[in-house]
Amino acid sequence: MDNFIIAPKQGVPFVSVASMKKLINTLGIETCISALVKCVEADYKRWHLFEKSARYASHSKDGVIELMPVSDGNMFACKYVNGHPINTKQNLQTVAAFGLLADVATGYPILLSEMCVLTALRTAATSAMVAKYCAPTNATTLALIGNGAQSEFQALAMKTVLGIRQFRLYDIDRSASEKTYNNLQGFNIDVVICSSAAEAVTGAHIITTCTADKKNAIVLHNDMITNGVFINAIGGDCPGKTELDSKILQRADKVFVEFEPQTRIEGEIQHLPANFAVTEFHQVVNQQVTARDNDQQLIVFDGVGFASEDFSALVFIRDLLLQQPEYQVLDLITQQADPRNLFSVIREA
Amino acid sequence: MDNFIIAPKQGVPFVSVASMKKLINTLGIETCISALVKCVEADYKRWHLFEKSARYASHSKDGVIELMPVSDGNMFACKYVNGHPINTKQNLQTVAAFGLLADVATGYPILLSEMCVLTALRTAATSAMVAKYCAPTNATTLALIGNGAQSEFQALAMKTVLGIRQFRLYDIDRSASEKTYNNLQGFNIDVVICSSAAEAVTGAHIITTCTADKKNAIVLHNDMITNGVFINAIGGDCPGKTELDSKILQRADKVFVEFEPQTRIEGEIQHLPANFAVTEFHQVVNQQVTARDNDQQLIVFDGVGFASEDFSALVFIRDLLLQQPEYQVLDLITQQADPRNLFSVIREA
Repeated sequence: MDNFIIAPKQGVPFVSVASMKKLINTLGIETCISALVKCVEADYKRWHLFEKSARYASHSKDGVIELMPVSDGNMFACKYVNGHPINTKQNLQTVAAFGLLADVATGYPILLSEMCVLTALRTAATSAMVAKYCAPTNATTLALIGNGAQSEFQALAMKTVLGIRQFRLYDIDRSASEKTYNNLQGFNIDVVICSSAAEAVTGAHIITTCTADKKNAIVLHNDMITNGVFINAIGGDCPGKTELDSKILQRADKVFVEFEPQTRIEGEIQHLPANFAVTEFHQVVNQQVTARDNDQQLIVFDGVGFASEDFSALVFIRDLLLQQPEYQVLDLITQQADPRNLFSVIREA
Repeated sequence: MDNFIIAPKQGVPFVSVASMKKLINTLGIETCISALVKCVEADYKRWHLFEKSARYASHSKDGVIELMPVSDGNMFACKYVNGHPINTKQNLQTVAAFGLLADVATGYPILLSEMCVLTALRTAATSAMVAKYCAPTNATTLALIGNGAQSEFQALAMKTVLGIRQFRLYDIDRSASEKTYNNLQGFNIDVVICSSAAEAVTGAHIITTCTADKKNAIVLHNDMITNGVFINAIGGDCPGKTELDSKILQRADKVFVEFEPQTRIEGEIQHLPANFAVTEFHQVVNQQVTARDNDQQLIVFDGVGFASEDFSALVFIRDLLLQQPEYQVLDLITQQADPRNLFSVIREA
């Protein structure tokens, strides 16, 4: 019963959006991201222990609904997440997500949590963990292409983990860049809004692309990219949704992915032959492969988001709740005295 | 926005165990089952519209954790469910389940619900729907082998839909039969406890097996089965978890399944060659196949539980909520004014 936050017959702990806000702010967002990076990295170190699969995806006309299950044999995690870029037209979010953690020994849910905010945090933490290995020496400047829901989290993670201080924003919608600019005031970083992707990447040591359109876009052209940079390409994460000129991938010295079978379907490499060489990033964390051999190399991370990262984030929140019991209790699972007497639950007294 | 019970920015409706109890009792359990049978059958009629897949299963030493996603293109449903027979040893349930309904057009969750009770209801409703077609004429007596969590629901569904009045119970644990016997008092049916499976099936027109052990058991031997009966075999629903002597399947005139690719993995037919003839039950509902040609035929339903049945049950509950707003509202998805400004959610005021 080690995994349970409260006894299984007392209900299921639920972290609402309001609770997540409190948990993050009590800890401080930068401390929170730093701690989460450590969790994500620790789970990448024990990559072989996870039961892994490409996520389940149900595609419809305007979006996709996905399920991301994973287990380490002790706990099982699953995130529900959608991707509907069209939603912003009716004032809804592109992504709505929530997650579950369950105890493998009993199959009982041990945590239900909002994951709109938590997904942005874990994605930023993953990007920063990867960048720590892949960025050129003394990187100070980052171009952030696509200034939607994730951009501030990305910027703060790169500041906190790598010490990046210069951020160059670009979005096809200038108001999105302005929103990001305003949100990043007070964090002791320099932020400038650029009027093109080409302008934004000028002088940048790291380029993060996180655009949202469900189409094969070319956000970065090959001729915009100088050697030596690290490209953190995380917006292309669905069949038919990519961001990079494939010449960049072909030219790159190394292309890293999370879980190859999933990235072949969803990542930037969906346009390339099935034998195009990529390396799973856990090999870097486990020192089987060097991320970067020198500061002239062009390194690409073709990130699509993997279930183990959600697992890490949910376990991180679970551990936080053990110290800071910021949750509601849901009457989600029946709690009858005799487990076999399910019928007693609905019998009138 | 037709699918939403409340506006998407107002939160996600949640049906707790207590709410489920109220919803069922307000309607009356037998009325509830009758209505649910109609929903399950209506969805079997439009079988071809569903996006179907064999469920995701994560097996561990003592149990299994499963995800059962399905979509009709308008709504998406997913059930989380485990199966841990060992749980009863520590006073927990074998099965703990909950479900989600989401809007395909936006990807937003529209309902979260307990599904311990609802799964028992939908399984009973499915059994009764199938039995309506497969039972011999004038069936009056049913043997119920395995008297765990589902037994009362099975009995009431068979009473309500087929008018069965005689129930013959058997369980290797007599106290389970006594529990079922006691729960079924006051429902205007005759219930007897038998001391063997052979005794229970004597004179029965329908035999329902719903045992829980995760092993290849033989609950029914071939020589116990006379011609003319309908066997509703629903306890064998996992690799390595079956209930029938495979001679019964080979001898049966017809063997029906829900979704063949899933049942080949999980059902009684897992022991038989991949070309062993089975018929998907939607063909019966759609009058492409006759369930039973005469009262001498031995008919078997190899039921494992399919995601469309959970879909039907969740939509049934959603429709009930529109008339009877018995739900809590969960702060599960962020609701910021500007959808792209996710960061505003965690910014301190």
